[in-house]
Amino acid sequence: MARDINVGIIGFGTVGSGTVDILIRNQEIIKRRLGVNLVLKSIADIDINRKRDVMVPDGLLTDRAEDILEDPEIDIVVELIGGLKDAKRYLLAAIENGKHVVTANKALLAEQGKEIYELATRKHVGVAFEASVGGGIPVIRALREGLCANRIRRITGILNGTSNFILTRMANEGLTYEDAVKSAIRMGYAEDPPDLDINGTDAAHKITIMVSIVLGSPYPFDEVYREGIDKLSPDDLRFADEFGYSIKLLAISTFSDNRVQARVHPAMVPKGHILANVSDVFNAVFIEGDFVGPNLFYGLGAGRNPTGSAVVSDIMSLARHISHGVSYSIPPLGYSENRKENFVVEPMDYLNTPYYFRFSAIDKPGVLSKISGVLGDNNISIHSVIQKGREINGPVPIVMLTHEARESDVRKALSVIDNLDVLTDKTVMIRVYGG
Amino acid sequence: MARDINVGIIGFGTVGSGTVDILIRNQEIIKRRLGVNLVLKSIADIDINRKRDVMVPDGLLTDRAEDILEDPEIDIVVELIGGLKDAKRYLLAAIENGKHVVTANKALLAEQGKEIYELATRKHVGVAFEASVGGGIPVIRALREGLCANRIRRITGILNGTSNFILTRMANEGLTYEDAVKSAIRMGYAEDPPDLDINGTDAAHKITIMVSIVLGSPYPFDEVYREGIDKLSPDDLRFADEFGYSIKLLAISTFSDNRVQARVHPAMVPKGHILANVSDVFNAVFIEGDFVGPNLFYGLGAGRNPTGSAVVSDIMSLARHISHGVSYSIPPLGYSENRKENFVVEPMDYLNTPYYFRFSAIDKPGVLSKISGVLGDNNISIHSVIQKGREINGPVPIVMLTHEARESDVRKALSVIDNLDVLTDKTVMIRVYGG
Repeated sequence: MARDINVGIIGFGTVGSGTVDILIRNQEIIKRRLGVNLVLKSIADIDINRKRDVMVPDGLLTDRAEDILEDPEIDIVVELIGGLKDAKRYLLAAIENGKHVVTANKALLAEQGKEIYELATRKHVGVAFEASVGGGIPVIRALREGLCANRIRRITGILNGTSNFILTRMANEGLTYEDAVKSAIRMGYAEDPPDLDINGTDAAHKITIMVSIVLGSPYPFDEVYREGIDKLSPDDLRFADEFGYSIKLLAISTFSDNRVQARVHPAMVPKGHILANVSDVFNAVFIEGDFVGPNLFYGLGAGRNPTGSAVVSDIMSLARHISHGVSYSIPPLGYSENRKENFVVEPMDYLNTPYYFRFSAIDKPGVLSKISGVLGDNNISIHSVIQKGREINGPVPIVMLTHEARESDVRKALSVIDNLDVLTDKTVMIRVYGG
Repeated sequence: MARDINVGIIGFGTVGSGTVDILIRNQEIIKRRLGVNLVLKSIADIDINRKRDVMVPDGLLTDRAEDILEDPEIDIVVELIGGLKDAKRYLLAAIENGKHVVTANKALLAEQGKEIYELATRKHVGVAFEASVGGGIPVIRALREGLCANRIRRITGILNGTSNFILTRMANEGLTYEDAVKSAIRMGYAEDPPDLDINGTDAAHKITIMVSIVLGSPYPFDEVYREGIDKLSPDDLRFADEFGYSIKLLAISTFSDNRVQARVHPAMVPKGHILANVSDVFNAVFIEGDFVGPNLFYGLGAGRNPTGSAVVSDIMSLARHISHGVSYSIPPLGYSENRKENFVVEPMDYLNTPYYFRFSAIDKPGVLSKISGVLGDNNISIHSVIQKGREINGPVPIVMLTHEARESDVRKALSVIDNLDVLTDKTVMIRVYGG
């Protein structure tokens, strides 16, 4: 029988509690799978007195992360405090001390992962972060190992459960954005305020991590285009439905030769597409590879238990290696060669896709002709139009789907249209997602 | 730089060609990911003269599998000939010679996997079989590693692309079963005759492999209940649609305490369920774990390229270990302890689920009352009924959804009903899938 593997956890919040709960409740089956005991040796948190929903034996808790980082018996350090500064300091210290590390910290990995990956490679320890993308969905493994025979062509993710919940409520119940947000906060699916979730930052962190794995080197987070869901109205979801689409907050990255683009924005997804059927707080990642074709990975993208499941699966992978005396572990981004991928960031202006527009216009003759004239001047051709309802002297929505157009042309056209005196409000623009 | 890793492939058919194509065309990115060269050293096939869609260098082909099995320089042997006898002999010989093995052979693993797993464990070599379930979908990895922190509660798979294609054609275009089969054969999605695909055997092989991973010991293939799709008519797909369901050939396994059930049969899937949206030749596996909740894995379940993608991902995993001089590899079924799981097979008679019935009855007063009388006598209560259309003096379909009922009661009731003189044909029974 090999020796026990000792685990230290820094951060005893939501995900920490889920992780500890699994380690305790599924201890027996984990041991049968690994062939060794995983011993939870220490948990550090700034608050060790707060009542939690999981009981731990006396003496396990400490308020000093150093007790874990400097304990020579601890093999694996799990960082679950979130945030950038302390989390990074702890991870680097753990790696420096030769410990394997597990983290769920997407912001840290997306914004400053480079240092962590590099130190881990130098120190020959594993860095595992399955929980950083898609909660319990084992999509990091899929991308790094399961699909490793492929050149990845595109990744499309519904990566933020909060936004997806809000959009689902708006679509199914006709709620306004504000009311849907309130409902999400009430049900515990959103922070108050929910900024990072609904403005696309959280999804951008996650797509950055996946793009980095595809490339084998950290992708610059600042290059991810970001647009949130707060400009959408129930009208948009209703019109989308009429056109045969669902609106989802998508994180999309495309890889073509050495050109890479990553963007997060609301998008119209054709109802026949499997991503259109991902509702409520569910997450999904749609990955297209040159040989495997399309793959979808779907599950709960957040929460104590699913995220805990991902954290423990990482602990178990590392423990398998340790218990066999193997210092080797798969490289953080899945590439063993250090040669940099020579990629260029494809600017948003070059995007070619169909667009949805909702114009708020005064109900007067000639308005549609003025708008379509500007579109025509900018090489944008119209696919279909919906114009209905009229309030006396009030604004009417004119809704349009275009054929494929260039983002730079669209921006130019909208800047002209939004200044026409027949327009009463800024035009809503939503990109259409397609094959 | 570590030494090259040598690969020998036995079987140069469809999947073999895909595998070789990937190894050649993606050679550079594979090398960057692994840090070592994968060298395709030898390919054995009984026919080495046939023209194939992938070019290989001279001298690579042999018609003697022994040239690969006995080559001391070959590290990894890939078995892609299918069938039971020779495939098994080759795999055992390769393992006996200390080689790691990769196979896509679901029939062999499901029916006689035990010997292979045991010898591999004894010889400390890896057995990888990602391609045996779900084609290119990395679901074996997901089950064995990604979700390893969980107790699995249920697995539900759409595991046979041919059947799914046929059902999709019947549902969308109203084709008869026979015409849909012809269309599948014409498009190259089905063998002629397509027996193993449409009678549930192929799906049963795949669910057997997954159940074995959940349990950590080979599940007896003969205990998997099997029912095919050949009794379904376009009427059933239409009525299902009216009731709000899609009909899919599902492979379902449930795990409750130590009771295990595995079954393959057509099932009514509520349209809101993500599995109802898996169409055409796509496969999907829906896995529910105690902490992770529901996960879906979706992609192309067959074909040269997706299956080749899975085979090469396995080769790469083994190569990573070999190149680091690591003899250890994850155990075939994911359990390091040998203690047997103490499970009992739950008989089909104990199943509790709602049912769909299509009765073919003479259009006479009192028929519905007779049928429902027999159902009532057997503790089966009716949820909803559709009865429409009438041909003069001809049979009319009476279609019913029941509340939850016991399979043994249903069998008893149908044996009585099918003998009523007002029935003109055997009743079609479809189980309803639910949460």
